[in-house]
Amino acid sequence: MEGDPLSALFTPAFVVDVDKAKRNAQRMIEHCQKLGVQLRPHMKTHKTLECADIMTGGSQRCIVVSTLAEACFYTDHGYDDILYAYSIPFDKVEHCAALSERLDLFQILLDHPDALEQLRKRPLKDGRQWHVWLKLDCGNGRAGVLHSEPGALKLAEAIAKTEGMELTGVYAHCGNTYYCTGDEQIQAVAQETTKLTLQFMEKLKAVGITCKSSIGSTPSCSHPVKDMAQLSEVHPGNYVFYDVQQSTIGSCCLEDVAVRVLTRVIGHCPHRNQLLIDCGWAGISLDGAGKLPTGYAVIEGHPNLKLLSMTQEHGRVEPISGQLDYSKYPLGSLLTLIPYHSCATAVMHPVYHVHSKGRLVGKWTPTRGWGRAGRCFPLLVFLGQMRYIETHSKLFTH
Amino acid sequence: MEGDPLSALFTPAFVVDVDKAKRNAQRMIEHCQKLGVQLRPHMKTHKTLECADIMTGGSQRCIVVSTLAEACFYTDHGYDDILYAYSIPFDKVEHCAALSERLDLFQILLDHPDALEQLRKRPLKDGRQWHVWLKLDCGNGRAGVLHSEPGALKLAEAIAKTEGMELTGVYAHCGNTYYCTGDEQIQAVAQETTKLTLQFMEKLKAVGITCKSSIGSTPSCSHPVKDMAQLSEVHPGNYVFYDVQQSTIGSCCLEDVAVRVLTRVIGHCPHRNQLLIDCGWAGISLDGAGKLPTGYAVIEGHPNLKLLSMTQEHGRVEPISGQLDYSKYPLGSLLTLIPYHSCATAVMHPVYHVHSKGRLVGKWTPTRGWGRAGRCFPLLVFLGQMRYIETHSKLFTH
Repeated sequence: MEGDPLSALFTPAFVVDVDKAKRNAQRMIEHCQKLGVQLRPHMKTHKTLECADIMTGGSQRCIVVSTLAEACFYTDHGYDDILYAYSIPFDKVEHCAALSERLDLFQILLDHPDALEQLRKRPLKDGRQWHVWLKLDCGNGRAGVLHSEPGALKLAEAIAKTEGMELTGVYAHCGNTYYCTGDEQIQAVAQETTKLTLQFMEKLKAVGITCKSSIGSTPSCSHPVKDMAQLSEVHPGNYVFYDVQQSTIGSCCLEDVAVRVLTRVIGHCPHRNQLLIDCGWAGISLDGAGKLPTGYAVIEGHPNLKLLSMTQEHGRVEPISGQLDYSKYPLGSLLTLIPYHSCATAVMHPVYHVHSKGRLVGKWTPTRGWGRAGRCFPLLVFLGQMRYIETHSKLFTH
Repeated sequence: MEGDPLSALFTPAFVVDVDKAKRNAQRMIEHCQKLGVQLRPHMKTHKTLECADIMTGGSQRCIVVSTLAEACFYTDHGYDDILYAYSIPFDKVEHCAALSERLDLFQILLDHPDALEQLRKRPLKDGRQWHVWLKLDCGNGRAGVLHSEPGALKLAEAIAKTEGMELTGVYAHCGNTYYCTGDEQIQAVAQETTKLTLQFMEKLKAVGITCKSSIGSTPSCSHPVKDMAQLSEVHPGNYVFYDVQQSTIGSCCLEDVAVRVLTRVIGHCPHRNQLLIDCGWAGISLDGAGKLPTGYAVIEGHPNLKLLSMTQEHGRVEPISGQLDYSKYPLGSLLTLIPYHSCATAVMHPVYHVHSKGRLVGKWTPTRGWGRAGRCFPLLVFLGQMRYIETHSKLFTH
């Protein structure tokens, strides 16, 4: 119930401090304004409408998504200028075509000539163009055509030359910042990714092609380097929540982390010097194994406690040193976990409980899965449209 | 669409071979009939109505659940004789009371005198009794009062003596079978857990108390020992799906595993001798890290491939030895992952795609979370009742 304290929640519960989330979002908006680059926030960490509103400053425009389910969800709720930043999966070409024909600006991404061929086979209706980003690998080592490969330029040219298609931009994800510790290392990766992307843009210019450029990751965008001002866009996502991982990388302070998992003590095991909590891997995920002295999470206010191991619905907690004083942790008492990786923890929860200064202010419901659930529920589409009209009529009257 | 081949699915997709699930369920029913013990199947692996029907042989009675959300979900859909086998969390006492007052037989579990005190403070209406199981730790090392502790017997006596309360049974989970390899080791743990539980039952008898006894885990119930016939019930759950972990423990063959994650190739990375698939940890979970030579899963039909590492929506696959022949794995081609731990993989999916001999026959929708969502949706309750009436009218007419 709104107004209730957090202790009114069933545990485990994923809770969002909306003031911190807003502050994190605002700080990123300001970083980008100062740099003069367009912020295109990534939705994959939270996958909710409410948080998307916060990250887009209410514009409901210019977002990145990682799944077709997210693309449909935001489309159905009035969002536009959506980039589905995922090497286009061949099973989803038809649905991407439908979204391209429905939205003002639906954008896709590819990194292989075979994907281009798939798009070529599905021209869009009404003279519409496919808006295509080229994914470049500038050292991250995941998706993307290697920046140094001659094939990269050739593919960009092929996209630009193909009828019914526009080379919208060049997209690089500097996920290798996740191996950094501290501003200096983060900025070295940000600088290298920016440099390689801009060099590629120069190569494009030399063959007469101009388009946008975008790099991003929460670490690099939290500590942007000057040269990033020469890019068109950046696309971080995790920053709205942050997490322990980001604080150890150096993207933020632990105080900036906007999310927690609330849990309760459900067992005392003095013969093992442990206690049990009602949060297992189903409540916080297995991400972060072996990374922290405090185990799978940071237990807020209890630096000597460690979340040692978990099964589906149980967590084993023990002291890092010494004996547990059980009188401090009676059965039923609350503990607060700061997640190692908020993307991984959020995905375990069908609902997020949102609070301001410890009082509940609402619930956010994320979209899940990989299909097109949004299209299956005309009611949702209708509500999305109503919400869109409401928002826009507010914009008109204010 | 029903009748479509699996290749019609968007990936990643969690798919269930309904024939294998039925065969696994039937085999467990037969094990228990042969032993003469009551099977009380655990719902936590799948959390669906359809699979619960298969596991209960259509009776919709006598199940175990791990969360209050599951308890509400099955209650709302006509199930009864439900054991919420989780050291009763103090925030959920009131809701457990409500379920106890609503169902013919709702059962809870505890392992601490403070929990007993919580129940004592909330007597049930209409002269109803709390049905309470005592959780015993017979070497598993998670929840439960230690079998060897004098407090165990004292707590059982206190439950039995408390007005408005019945000591329904003694419950032990032999999760330590998960550290076994092969029948012999599994049966040694099953034997030890059975022996310790039966010894405890003798102690109870000596003080004039008789009640039920139950042990269980998928490994022990897949290879039951003779003495388990002296128990009242067993409560395995994973067996309906099984997984790679169960096959390495020795509970089943790999051929018995009823679930898969379908994924597609979305990238070729010859400079790293890798390919990318559209299944990351959001599609298969991080369970099983470091356990298998093939990485986070078994890639069916490709014993030389390894699922090396994952991010949220990407998996990196490489050969265990030699060079990848990319012509065998064109972009868009399907690969099939056999999950290491089906409980952990299922939880990542909002819908399961069910097939028989490779043709889709339907979708199952699991319940999620920890609250009482079921009670919040009168429509669901109504549909549940309709389904229940429908099922029972079928039972009456056949």
